[in-house]
Amino acid sequence: MGSIMSNIINRRSIRAYTSKKIDRTDIIQILTAASWAPSGNNLQPWRFSVITNAELIKELSSLTIYHNWVQSAPCLIAVFLDTKTVDDKISNIYLKHVQAIGAAIQNMLLTAHELGLGTCWIGEILKNEDKVKELIGISSEMQLMAIISVGYPSKDSKSRRMDISEIIINWL
Amino acid sequence: MGSIMSNIINRRSIRAYTSKKIDRTDIIQILTAASWAPSGNNLQPWRFSVITNAELIKELSSLTIYHNWVQSAPCLIAVFLDTKTVDDKISNIYLKHVQAIGAAIQNMLLTAHELGLGTCWIGEILKNEDKVKELIGISSEMQLMAIISVGYPSKDSKSRRMDISEIIINWL
Repeated sequence: MGSIMSNIINRRSIRAYTSKKIDRTDIIQILTAASWAPSGNNLQPWRFSVITNAELIKELSSLTIYHNWVQSAPCLIAVFLDTKTVDDKISNIYLKHVQAIGAAIQNMLLTAHELGLGTCWIGEILKNEDKVKELIGISSEMQLMAIISVGYPSKDSKSRRMDISEIIINWL
Repeated sequence: MGSIMSNIINRRSIRAYTSKKIDRTDIIQILTAASWAPSGNNLQPWRFSVITNAELIKELSSLTIYHNWVQSAPCLIAVFLDTKTVDDKISNIYLKHVQAIGAAIQNMLLTAHELGLGTCWIGEILKNEDKVKELIGISSEMQLMAIISVGYPSKDSKSRRMDISEIIINWL
């Protein structure tokens, strides 16, 4: 198995972190990886807010039911879609941009995994988008897509997937 | 630079293919990589239709302005969101699932790149979703997210990205 495939299959969502801080260069590398995702017309709709301030992390954590472990992360990265890159939310370009954000996030998770870091993709916090934006000073033009927690893993995690035959509809 | 980072940064959208066929095992590996993307509540909303039939590829190509090079691909993979996994399209779970599909597609592109294959993520064909679904026999419960062309590259491609400082809103 190639190293990409192995990274993809062995990455897990990590929900427990040690207190070790993350190097700034590692965060830059993770965001650089994000930026190399493809996007419709190469419009690169992703924007990021990096939070390493312990007090802010605690306040953000309180906005999700997962606060117990989110607050243990030494870094949170809030991922936004810059709505200036789209006309409206029912357009195909919006649909493509949301997918592109997902591709950028996957690049982040895989790169973090290669760096020995664990991540978790938190969507449940979207219900509190306005409060998140207020806390970290983000303008209304940005739509919150996810918050990614990042840190050194203190515990392994397991996952499973459907059989490949269940996700292939047909082969023509 | 690690091998993941290198793969992410060096992958390009490929819009010209040789006539060489793709091994079935490579396609299975690409779809297996897709299946290991994370998704909200691990609901794995992605479904795939693999098209290697030359006649069908030609017919599908005619549904996009990119037909000149799309028809040269030896394989197309249509990616769908199984709408049975969501309540409605304005819910956060739908937003998360669309991102998850993007993550799955990115896994496909990176794995194909590792296998020496070139890909292009085609969104422009979404305007003809109904015709695509009719051609390849897909039920109305499936929403077309993209078609990915796959083949051995016959030409290199270039791309560029915004500076990292332009996509980081703030660092708190």
